[in-house]
Amino acid sequence: MKKISDKVIGRLSLYRRILRETLILGTRKLFSYQLANSAGISAAQVRQDLMILGYMGSPTQGYDVHGLLECIEEFLDDPAGQSVALVGIGNLGRAILDYFSGRRPNLSIDAAFDINPEKTNGVIHSCRCYHLDQLLQVIEEKGILTAIITVPADQAQGVADRLVRAGIRGILNFAPVRVKVPPDVFVQDIDIAMVLEKVAYFSRPK
Amino acid sequence: MKKISDKVIGRLSLYRRILRETLILGTRKLFSYQLANSAGISAAQVRQDLMILGYMGSPTQGYDVHGLLECIEEFLDDPAGQSVALVGIGNLGRAILDYFSGRRPNLSIDAAFDINPEKTNGVIHSCRCYHLDQLLQVIEEKGILTAIITVPADQAQGVADRLVRAGIRGILNFAPVRVKVPPDVFVQDIDIAMVLEKVAYFSRPK
Repeated sequence: MKKISDKVIGRLSLYRRILRETLILGTRKLFSYQLANSAGISAAQVRQDLMILGYMGSPTQGYDVHGLLECIEEFLDDPAGQSVALVGIGNLGRAILDYFSGRRPNLSIDAAFDINPEKTNGVIHSCRCYHLDQLLQVIEEKGILTAIITVPADQAQGVADRLVRAGIRGILNFAPVRVKVPPDVFVQDIDIAMVLEKVAYFSRPK
Repeated sequence: MKKISDKVIGRLSLYRRILRETLILGTRKLFSYQLANSAGISAAQVRQDLMILGYMGSPTQGYDVHGLLECIEEFLDDPAGQSVALVGIGNLGRAILDYFSGRRPNLSIDAAFDINPEKTNGVIHSCRCYHLDQLLQVIEEKGILTAIITVPADQAQGVADRLVRAGIRGILNFAPVRVKVPPDVFVQDIDIAMVLEKVAYFSRPK
């Protein structure tokens, strides 16, 4: 299969969110321009993305919301479910553990790590916590491929190195620093401070 | 002045982060290709972005790190400092209050709001907390233009409406739903679950 880009996957994930909201509101059919409008992109882009899935709408009735949602889920999710590890049980780490606890049937944070012994050997928001020294062993045993980094900037690279050695293939990095990983490991950064700076810039009268 | 795009501001903010790291490491001069390499973009893009600031490097010595950093800060920051409001004092809200407490001299969260009376009328991570009913009054009094939404999805639109009425011009929205605002209000979404889904997708063996 042709390699799907980062941006396409991001948009499919956004369509899924919109389709779920649409279903809750009781709407069963949706035209590409309506989905495009909700997503803030062009209808041509929506049609092009959904063509990758091989999903066709009816020109007169639009897409079947339920069918399209199933099709996107099948494409994005691992039917067996995926485990995620989190490193750094500070405020942000806890917030993320709380947020994901039981929310996504196909995606769950199954192990959290920290260097502080007071934070390990317990369960936080139904996630088992371990000392960082157990990272390699736990991640290998559980076959975890995805990790979240919520440690301070100066510890992020060391943690990323350990994660890669343990077999992690994708990292969501909240530390405000770019981590170096082999080219076949996917990294997505979320630097909350940087995003807030941007919003603050656009808030000011020009 | 020509309207600067969202993407340019995002990159300038990233350059600033990299330049700060560079200074800490003791490096005083940097070529555009080095900055580009750290930022994961092309050198031509870096030069084009910095030209907007009117900042020129020397072809033989590169950019002066300290000078360029000052120039970017002058461009991005309000010299008088900017206040930010946060709505939703849950786990994520608290994590963000903690993270920003005293970290950025030019950007501080000066008011937090919640509907739960147990969470208001106190101070969390040096930020004063208020009941949501005081939002309009407090934001107007403090002249706040930027806000962060960390409430659940079903409350996000109502909160966004209140914020806009109070004069907010930029919103960082963590609720997993798109909020509708007038076209002159800037909104940036961070949907952590959606980003994690993308990382999980790219972690799987294809």
